[in-house]
Amino acid sequence: MNPEIIAKLQGIVGVSYVFTDEETRNSYGHDETEDLVFPPQVVVKPASAAEISAIVILANEYTIPVVPIGGRTGLSGGALSIHGGIALSTERLNRILEIDEKNLQVITEPAVITQILQDTVLEKGLFYPVDPSSRGSCFIGGNVAENAGGARAVKYGVTKDYVLNLEVVLPTGEIIWTGANTLKNSTGYNLTQLLVGSEGTLGIITKIVLKLLPKNHHNVLMLVPFFKAGEACEAVSAIFRAGIVPSALEFMERDAIDWTLRFIDGINVPVKETIEAHLLIEVDGNYPDILFAEAEKIMQVLESFEIDEILFADSDDQKNALWKMRRGVAEAVKANSVYKEEDTVVPRYELPRLLEGIKIIGAKYGFQSVCYGHAGDGNLHVNIIKGAMTDENWKTEVPKGIREIFELTVALKGTLSGEHGIGYVQKNYMDIAFSDKQLLLMKGIKTLFDPNNILNPGKIFPDTL
Amino acid sequence: MNPEIIAKLQGIVGVSYVFTDEETRNSYGHDETEDLVFPPQVVVKPASAAEISAIVILANEYTIPVVPIGGRTGLSGGALSIHGGIALSTERLNRILEIDEKNLQVITEPAVITQILQDTVLEKGLFYPVDPSSRGSCFIGGNVAENAGGARAVKYGVTKDYVLNLEVVLPTGEIIWTGANTLKNSTGYNLTQLLVGSEGTLGIITKIVLKLLPKNHHNVLMLVPFFKAGEACEAVSAIFRAGIVPSALEFMERDAIDWTLRFIDGINVPVKETIEAHLLIEVDGNYPDILFAEAEKIMQVLESFEIDEILFADSDDQKNALWKMRRGVAEAVKANSVYKEEDTVVPRYELPRLLEGIKIIGAKYGFQSVCYGHAGDGNLHVNIIKGAMTDENWKTEVPKGIREIFELTVALKGTLSGEHGIGYVQKNYMDIAFSDKQLLLMKGIKTLFDPNNILNPGKIFPDTL
Repeated sequence: MNPEIIAKLQGIVGVSYVFTDEETRNSYGHDETEDLVFPPQVVVKPASAAEISAIVILANEYTIPVVPIGGRTGLSGGALSIHGGIALSTERLNRILEIDEKNLQVITEPAVITQILQDTVLEKGLFYPVDPSSRGSCFIGGNVAENAGGARAVKYGVTKDYVLNLEVVLPTGEIIWTGANTLKNSTGYNLTQLLVGSEGTLGIITKIVLKLLPKNHHNVLMLVPFFKAGEACEAVSAIFRAGIVPSALEFMERDAIDWTLRFIDGINVPVKETIEAHLLIEVDGNYPDILFAEAEKIMQVLESFEIDEILFADSDDQKNALWKMRRGVAEAVKANSVYKEEDTVVPRYELPRLLEGIKIIGAKYGFQSVCYGHAGDGNLHVNIIKGAMTDENWKTEVPKGIREIFELTVALKGTLSGEHGIGYVQKNYMDIAFSDKQLLLMKGIKTLFDPNNILNPGKIFPDTL
Repeated sequence: MNPEIIAKLQGIVGVSYVFTDEETRNSYGHDETEDLVFPPQVVVKPASAAEISAIVILANEYTIPVVPIGGRTGLSGGALSIHGGIALSTERLNRILEIDEKNLQVITEPAVITQILQDTVLEKGLFYPVDPSSRGSCFIGGNVAENAGGARAVKYGVTKDYVLNLEVVLPTGEIIWTGANTLKNSTGYNLTQLLVGSEGTLGIITKIVLKLLPKNHHNVLMLVPFFKAGEACEAVSAIFRAGIVPSALEFMERDAIDWTLRFIDGINVPVKETIEAHLLIEVDGNYPDILFAEAEKIMQVLESFEIDEILFADSDDQKNALWKMRRGVAEAVKANSVYKEEDTVVPRYELPRLLEGIKIIGAKYGFQSVCYGHAGDGNLHVNIIKGAMTDENWKTEVPKGIREIFELTVALKGTLSGEHGIGYVQKNYMDIAFSDKQLLLMKGIKTLFDPNNILNPGKIFPDTL
């Protein structure tokens, strides 16, 4: 990169926050997406919205890509510097600015780790329910950028349902708020919701106002083994039809649990060979009696399926162990084999059709898959395992299979991504979910916000558009 | 209007669905906004998205405004044909297409009356919680267009929180779906949320996919009289801080109740002269014991305020009477005097500051106001009463006062409209909430969708933009 630009960047953020060494560039050149690495030419770590504004103005002047970087836990390659340029890490904007107990809101900077945000508001008796599996390392800003979900979305909704207002540096350098700090808002177009899930292509988020809830005091957690995976999927929808809204309803194929137990030490869950899948079911609230009554009702629903003995987590330790297992699945799969992960989502009743279809498609193209995810939302993570596949087949056959899986999700009234975003690795499947007209409207919005296409270019939109 | 265009419209929708008589034009020339009437040149009543598409393509050809019309219950003038042209009534798209019990969803056309939708899904044990006061006559399509709220938003959210997917006729004639029928979606920009609340300026909604909940079986309703209106506002926030999320928390100044009781027959609520305001508080759920415990907790919170005797509604009839009273306030105020209604919204803890400020501003500009609304959301409807004001002062002083009220809401981190939309009557206050850059981004989106500005022109954006 032109030394003049480096010098200008140093002038903006200070010499010690501009990095051009290979190690730093490599480190900021990947997120958690497969084994992909696209190093930027330079990594900058601004301290404020004003500095970010100056950086994007400079980037416009020289037409250099700027990729906003959060916790680098993304699973769709949204933070990859695929065209080089400037990696703009938000990590120094890491303060919780205000916990507004009177209005049940929190104002935070983007680089606060989600779990730290949750724990900090919990100390005040407040609850931020959105709970991505990566909560221990992901940033709240990245959660907003990808519209992250997680295990509790089934009852509490996803990130978009908590974002009231955003301070954003636009790709052209202006700093705006997208809305107001109110629970309701019918004042102009909803720029807030347009920014949520825009994957760092429409603006760089510098402040976030989130709605909070009063905390729940109790929960009941159970792990239910199913002899047939299809029945586990069917049970998901049956539980809702019985009038119960669990706070989590997670599906895991046996391999997912199996690999995870081998990968993470110290969790004692008996997993029989004859079991195809598990559901991890949680109900929460303030009244233990009610929760036991709801657990009872769930058990009645489950009686019509072939299940093995239910494990009730009867201590905090056991609950933590079960959640640690569930949260560890992604990493365990990754440790087991080269893989690709898809983030399919369908209306929840269609889950058995989706799971069945995935297995048929896998057989057709010669790949194995391990599926798990937020079944209560109809959100199934499909991990396609390279295993013993040849490199050649991995390259040519798998993309065809993925295309068929996505075609199936769309046919089932679902779509490509429930919570990971499209980013880099799914962009060339967007034609399955959208017509050219729809994509051109989205692209038109991108051009309106970012006329020089400097902010996170090469993401979301198919190469052919 | 050019007879050639009329003939073409007749060709599209059939002769019997094109109206140019004065009575029909006048009737479709108003909604519930003040006493404003802007008759269109022609009223058309298409039967399908395809017919609507043909109409907007024709309108583009001749550059004629098209104003989408729903139940005509709007309070911001969004359905007024301020530039004449074609009033496009959606009233024939009035079928509930599918109640998907398996996925807890409903697919509906836009001209279904909200209460009919609620009642129909309730028969299947399902719950559509969004409950605007006009639910007996408003259309669900209009609710989506304005992002309607209502009494239960405080616990259940507003229309936007239930819209999963929309079929929309774009201003250029293409028919698209905005998303997928899934609870989660991180696939491209959120066109669904961009359309919700866009007030008929970005597209004409022809199908709506809504999320439903399992129905609640019980509720407890109480009416709490406060000697001081400011204390009623303070109590709102105190209830939430005690960890309770009521399903409704409505505020009414004494005049609002007083006028309503005189306007609606057969409701027996004692209203003392010494009472300044009431809170109507509802909690709901499936377990009566829990609800009584929550009501008990609320009463403990209320002990620290100066209140008179609480009225518990102990029968369905009494509950209905109290809700009839609350829902009748707007009409009662309207019957009492010429008025203007503003739909202010602030973070809920700021309500006492807002109410106090409104009274001070009223005194300064010589107007009385009656305030009521969804206090749990911080959403206060401000009815400015003409009463004995001169026409001159009504014309010159009131707009200044409104401007100051909006400046106050924005200073309190709130905004102009919580649930009514900006439409025609608030558009020239938009500069208070937004900078030129923000407004130009919104306007840019409008132009992207509607290059010839044919769809509901002259709404949302200030005349000076």
